[in-house]
Amino acid sequence: MLGTMLYGPNDIRFEDVAQPTILHPTDAVIRVTAACVCGSDLWPYRGLQAHDAPMPMGHEYCGIVEEVGSAVKTIRPGQFVIGSFFASDNTCPHCQHGYQSSCQNREFVGGAQAPMLRVPLADGTLVATPEIPSADLIPSLLAVSDVMGTGWFAADAANVRPGATAVVVGDGAVGLLAVLSAKLMGAERIIAMSRHPDRQAIARQLGATNIVEERGEDGIARIRDLTKGVGADSVLECVGTAQSMDQALKVVRPGGFTSFVGVPHGVELRGEDLFFYHVHLHGGPAPVRRFLPDLIAKVWDKQINPGLVFDLDLPLAQVADAYRAMDERRAIKAILRP
Amino acid sequence: MLGTMLYGPNDIRFEDVAQPTILHPTDAVIRVTAACVCGSDLWPYRGLQAHDAPMPMGHEYCGIVEEVGSAVKTIRPGQFVIGSFFASDNTCPHCQHGYQSSCQNREFVGGAQAPMLRVPLADGTLVATPEIPSADLIPSLLAVSDVMGTGWFAADAANVRPGATAVVVGDGAVGLLAVLSAKLMGAERIIAMSRHPDRQAIARQLGATNIVEERGEDGIARIRDLTKGVGADSVLECVGTAQSMDQALKVVRPGGFTSFVGVPHGVELRGEDLFFYHVHLHGGPAPVRRFLPDLIAKVWDKQINPGLVFDLDLPLAQVADAYRAMDERRAIKAILRP
Repeated sequence: MLGTMLYGPNDIRFEDVAQPTILHPTDAVIRVTAACVCGSDLWPYRGLQAHDAPMPMGHEYCGIVEEVGSAVKTIRPGQFVIGSFFASDNTCPHCQHGYQSSCQNREFVGGAQAPMLRVPLADGTLVATPEIPSADLIPSLLAVSDVMGTGWFAADAANVRPGATAVVVGDGAVGLLAVLSAKLMGAERIIAMSRHPDRQAIARQLGATNIVEERGEDGIARIRDLTKGVGADSVLECVGTAQSMDQALKVVRPGGFTSFVGVPHGVELRGEDLFFYHVHLHGGPAPVRRFLPDLIAKVWDKQINPGLVFDLDLPLAQVADAYRAMDERRAIKAILRP
Repeated sequence: MLGTMLYGPNDIRFEDVAQPTILHPTDAVIRVTAACVCGSDLWPYRGLQAHDAPMPMGHEYCGIVEEVGSAVKTIRPGQFVIGSFFASDNTCPHCQHGYQSSCQNREFVGGAQAPMLRVPLADGTLVATPEIPSADLIPSLLAVSDVMGTGWFAADAANVRPGATAVVVGDGAVGLLAVLSAKLMGAERIIAMSRHPDRQAIARQLGATNIVEERGEDGIARIRDLTKGVGADSVLECVGTAQSMDQALKVVRPGGFTSFVGVPHGVELRGEDLFFYHVHLHGGPAPVRRFLPDLIAKVWDKQINPGLVFDLDLPLAQVADAYRAMDERRAIKAILRP
């Protein structure tokens, strides 16, 4: 089959790769209905993160189960399933605490930008929908696989509560869905930091009540001003750079909560600063598996439509175009159809 | 009057200082019944923290109100009161959220190692006992002014829950009272990191179920072993060094909570590490004022006896001896009587 490989900076190839098979009795192989390009795929694409080359790409997926290993008990061929970027057994102590992305047996799921995908620990990782979804639900079901689950974790980890003032740093797909998540959790005021009119419009559509275009010290001053000098209750950092983290920590009120859900690149924090910020800080790879049943149900019932972050819909064979469009910020997020 | 001044490393002088007076209408002046030396006093004493010299020392105190300013409404002369190291108005947004040590009008209370002390924002800062306490209660009432309140915050910020496994890093007075606090909050297993037999004995008396003597990588391995490789639910970092923070972050389970309550000195944290530790991190200057009513009541009702951390009882005039004994770790904590 043809799958997506990254050879080096800006070098995405759609080429012959081995068809996945059951390697362990707990595996499933799924036929991918839709996959997409993640903001985190852009780090190695831009040469900003070391990686093996060539590397199979893609970790967001939904599709139909083709085959399962002999030890798989609950997932069955023919089901439509959604999983997350870390396979998890969903039974170890970390999973039981709701941190499936730190599962003691976790395994990164790579190679989803392809027609077929092997998913380890299928029973723990995959969640089946009630039936085969209609086509209009596919983008939103795909979104819960990572970007919506990550936005939701950003709001959850930042302890968004009814009536809260929340700030979302970052207007990528995760940031936009973090706005939606904060809204669903009852935030009264949601300040989105964004400089792009098209993304501002989506942020407003999803629940943002204020937009701050300024960055750095100016952005911090603007938010301090909007919160009457108090700072926000919850700050959702959805970028992962030193600048975005600095902003996120300087606009939270003492005793407030800052979450961070993008792998930090070049972020160094001084203990003394964190001490006097008096912030609750929590982040990490989103334990999407914890949220999948609830988020799938919300999509199924059409309470939420996170698929609207996909503003570029391409056949999988044009995956290189999808990377280019996202790298150049011409697209928020690309959905790929095998 | 004679008060305590720090001139430079190891240079504590008990010398003539101005008697405090009401400077602002919201001030009170109290006659200090007892004060003490804080672990944090040792940073500048050891020359490890820049400071103005000479600097009036002491920020833990209890005593009888001598005089109040014209705007003070609830605190009255003759009351026995306890306050914290940060004066707070107890009405601003940060105070209302329970973060009085980040009060918008906070003011550091210095100079408590003296017979008389000016306390700003008296109504917001001081809490009076039901009546004048008997002598046996004085050490424990003094302890809630900082060291017990800080140990309590360590447990609170580390989200200690009934049945939890907690690790306490540091066997100073705060660490020991963090053990007591974790016990009171229902931790089932409390692992105290301590290399000193006398302190281990106190830790056990206060509720520690396990002692780990090893430090650094060995200590981390030992705790991983004791928790079957899972890590602890709650880790209470009560030291403030790079090594102690490193230990605290490496023994918490993913999704667990690490608190830090001593001003970090030389602590740098990599964002990527915090991301993959998956830890909840919270710390800062303990908002002791939040806990004062409850902790005073617990002492008054003899439910707790945090005063047992005082193992050196000296007349205030011997304050330099108290610093020396604590610096050389001959004493856990010294109480000073004017």
